[in-house]
Amino acid sequence: MKIVKGFPAEDPKENYQLNVINLMKQGIRNFARQEIVSRKLDGTLFRYTYKDSYERMKRLANSLKSIGVKIGDRVGVLAWNSHHHFEIYYGLPGIGAVMVSLNLRLAPKDLAYVVNHSGTSFIIVDEDLITVAESIVPLCKNIRAYIIITEKDLSEIQTTLRHLYSYEDLLHEASPEYNWPNLDENSAYAANYTTGTTGKPKGVYYSHRNVYLQAMMFTAQFSMNMNDVVFQLVPMFHVVGWSKPQAATYAGAKLIFSGRWTLDDLEELTNIMVQENVTVSGAVPAVYMSMLEIIRKMPQKPDLSKTRFICGGSEPPIALMRGFWEETGGEIIHSYGSTEAMAITTLNLFKPWLKKELSEAELWNLKKKQGLITSGLDIKLVDESGNELPHDGQSSGEILLRGPWITTNYYNAPETKGNFTEDGYYKSGDAGSLDSEGFLKITDRIKDVIKSGGEWISSIDMENTLVSHQAILEASVVGIPHPKWDERPLALIVLRAGFESTSKDEILEYLSNIFAKWQLPDEILFVESIPRTSVGKLNKKLIRTEYKDLYSKR
Amino acid sequence: MKIVKGFPAEDPKENYQLNVINLMKQGIRNFARQEIVSRKLDGTLFRYTYKDSYERMKRLANSLKSIGVKIGDRVGVLAWNSHHHFEIYYGLPGIGAVMVSLNLRLAPKDLAYVVNHSGTSFIIVDEDLITVAESIVPLCKNIRAYIIITEKDLSEIQTTLRHLYSYEDLLHEASPEYNWPNLDENSAYAANYTTGTTGKPKGVYYSHRNVYLQAMMFTAQFSMNMNDVVFQLVPMFHVVGWSKPQAATYAGAKLIFSGRWTLDDLEELTNIMVQENVTVSGAVPAVYMSMLEIIRKMPQKPDLSKTRFICGGSEPPIALMRGFWEETGGEIIHSYGSTEAMAITTLNLFKPWLKKELSEAELWNLKKKQGLITSGLDIKLVDESGNELPHDGQSSGEILLRGPWITTNYYNAPETKGNFTEDGYYKSGDAGSLDSEGFLKITDRIKDVIKSGGEWISSIDMENTLVSHQAILEASVVGIPHPKWDERPLALIVLRAGFESTSKDEILEYLSNIFAKWQLPDEILFVESIPRTSVGKLNKKLIRTEYKDLYSKR
Repeated sequence: MKIVKGFPAEDPKENYQLNVINLMKQGIRNFARQEIVSRKLDGTLFRYTYKDSYERMKRLANSLKSIGVKIGDRVGVLAWNSHHHFEIYYGLPGIGAVMVSLNLRLAPKDLAYVVNHSGTSFIIVDEDLITVAESIVPLCKNIRAYIIITEKDLSEIQTTLRHLYSYEDLLHEASPEYNWPNLDENSAYAANYTTGTTGKPKGVYYSHRNVYLQAMMFTAQFSMNMNDVVFQLVPMFHVVGWSKPQAATYAGAKLIFSGRWTLDDLEELTNIMVQENVTVSGAVPAVYMSMLEIIRKMPQKPDLSKTRFICGGSEPPIALMRGFWEETGGEIIHSYGSTEAMAITTLNLFKPWLKKELSEAELWNLKKKQGLITSGLDIKLVDESGNELPHDGQSSGEILLRGPWITTNYYNAPETKGNFTEDGYYKSGDAGSLDSEGFLKITDRIKDVIKSGGEWISSIDMENTLVSHQAILEASVVGIPHPKWDERPLALIVLRAGFESTSKDEILEYLSNIFAKWQLPDEILFVESIPRTSVGKLNKKLIRTEYKDLYSKR
Repeated sequence: MKIVKGFPAEDPKENYQLNVINLMKQGIRNFARQEIVSRKLDGTLFRYTYKDSYERMKRLANSLKSIGVKIGDRVGVLAWNSHHHFEIYYGLPGIGAVMVSLNLRLAPKDLAYVVNHSGTSFIIVDEDLITVAESIVPLCKNIRAYIIITEKDLSEIQTTLRHLYSYEDLLHEASPEYNWPNLDENSAYAANYTTGTTGKPKGVYYSHRNVYLQAMMFTAQFSMNMNDVVFQLVPMFHVVGWSKPQAATYAGAKLIFSGRWTLDDLEELTNIMVQENVTVSGAVPAVYMSMLEIIRKMPQKPDLSKTRFICGGSEPPIALMRGFWEETGGEIIHSYGSTEAMAITTLNLFKPWLKKELSEAELWNLKKKQGLITSGLDIKLVDESGNELPHDGQSSGEILLRGPWITTNYYNAPETKGNFTEDGYYKSGDAGSLDSEGFLKITDRIKDVIKSGGEWISSIDMENTLVSHQAILEASVVGIPHPKWDERPLALIVLRAGFESTSKDEILEYLSNIFAKWQLPDEILFVESIPRTSVGKLNKKLIRTEYKDLYSKR
């Protein structure tokens, strides 16, 4: 969109650059003694301060330079949530390199695509994720070296990876002084690839400016300050950890990194949350569901009345929000976002006047909505012809977003230009309505993707794979509501004549050549035909309606 | 400072512009029903909403266009704090014009200088400030028209000003729809002239980006949200009202505009503060002193335990802060700034660990310091040779500031280049120390200015005027601590031989040709000689020390 110049106040070349080093520097000046806690692989808690962390960031910057990482280089990071990952969040982009966040749950094929498409030449990898890194080696020819995060001596590490460095050894040998470059705020800070919708993962490159401005917004809208204790549960390879590490730095809040975890570790994590007096966290509903069950069994209920839990990924049930409120006083706050929109585009915050006007039941119902579009963003709802729809709480159209941290392009993917409008909006692919108070409600999904435990599974990819099997004539994959994972895939399959004896296991085995285990459908149903719309497309809406209770009955 | 480009993430031309229209738009979407209260000239309270205000901003934009205001034009504003002024804050810079804030307390000569230097061609003026506007007419030839803010019919207004418009009539006739330009964030939003240090006022032109980023910072660091009620006491012609109107918009807070006021109106204003449940305000110590006295006389003490009072201009005494705390539960928060640094550069906020470690007396003492440099700024303390000093709480040097809203130049004043460093720092002219926790303490003033009730008086200007009097040989003007006004001027004068009979009144009358009444010295002392430093400069430090109790004893 054309920019109109007014009377010149500042030469952009004189602008103070909104890069993450400037964000971090002030955090150190004011909050040097603030604590950072990190759950190690053995479950014990490591503790240090912002000041300690900053010294290691400078050591990391020197280390990366010493092994040949240059301004503009892309460096992959395959790591759990830890103080190392936090150091990398600043020390790596601070030298002008790009942090390519590698989703450790992706199938090797997709992960290799990300590494190759981004031109990643170094990878930093957690000791216990070495096998994930090894799985992509045959597909990635341009990786010059691997930096292993481990407390062990490098000689004790068993791996086929070559050109190894030890993260700790590098830092130990490096100088603790580093003269950060005055980085252009439009430089790439991190690359995140979204695997949601079509065959190829698409690269969203966040600029330093994007990250800086979202950190400010998040601190402001979430009323975060140095009295807060932020629990980083959301994987840091997901959309820069939903901006919480950066907002915590801006606010000077205490940080706790969850380490490696699955749903099985939630009892331990819930205990840490209570012991450390966590006041801010973020996760998907499935995680909070399990936490609530754990809290219900506690003989003494924790007081979480100062705690705000951001809940993203899908709609939190009222029973969950109410349960948390009644058991602990903690508030679950629904938020909506995407990789393209940098995770936080809405926050469901209560308005003082609505608290007075609405009944308790109406307020709980309101909390299910995705919430208010955060300050600073533009939103439009449009119909199929691109006409803008009113914000009347009824009209539902595709959600278009524009703002300081909404992406305006996918990296090196000219075929995706249609995902953005000429006036700078990102087409979310989600349909929703906005009420007169500004609360967004997602009503439908335009893109055919499945959300499982906060992770995306592309139905289109899976359908394409299925119909490439010799026995399969037609296939449709849809997301069906699931009590624990929000959605799990269901595959409907029409077998070719003569292949009627094909088994479910045979098909699952075929899929597992391409897809990660957690992506495979929970159920495969063999049907006579698959419903189609009038224009011949798979009628997924109908399928989802027909099978909506399939997984909830189990 | 040279900007280093990393891997390109965004084309700056695709950046969402941080201009105040984008700031306001989101406020309207989410907080349309939020209330705005405005104290009228007759003392009654006018109430409307953000939505109402936004409609009038669009009408104002159309009005300005209709009378010939173009992108880049400078438009003066001579107005009290009111909802009109708030509408002007967005409607005027929103069309790409520059809001030239006119300090209604300046002497006509200085005010005319500001109007002429900025190239102001239109002036918006409050009905009861018409005489101020009239006083500059003979000195300003390029003003095309005046827009009078009044509820009266234009024919009832008695004035010698020519080419008059009525603000209300213009808005009434204008369309409520306006298509805002996509304004470059580096365009000038407002011009504020500082009269602090040398003869000519110096123009600080705030960009939209400056204003937007400080609004975000202030919302974040002050933990402001839509539950807050912001009382705009600080004159809106001072440094964009210390950013509170913009931060309130960002946060969606309720706003109250004080209208025309002097210290005599504080009882009424204090009552409004209590009735409207104000939670955020800003003022100089003299204002809070009077408010505290008023509160002390109230039979029932108000509960202001949610209220944060920013206190700028000079150091708030412990007795004041403690008094507020004990009487109301309200917290006074010391802040430091300047026109060049957009008012808010520090906030004295308590750290959780210091609350545990320090005694009560130590905490009160700490609250006197200027506080933590706000997130996002760089600070340096340097000695006279420009060497950086340690942050040890002892070393005192000139405070250099750099950051997203710190100015990097004065408009059209090449002779002032020395006030800025090559690496982008603004030389504040204040000396201070920083302790290891990051708290700033102002220790001395390098520039010779006097701060009276939050307003600046230039001692150098006054000295130059004095020595131009035929009877005066030497003169020195210094600021002496004053219980109500923080500082008031004292003039030391050495009379020429043969002029010994010159009276104080004669000198005061001479000064009042140039200076406003409130700027005149409270005392003039005739002395034999004035102390000088070894290099022959007036030794103001010594004078200030010698006479430090002069005004407090009265």
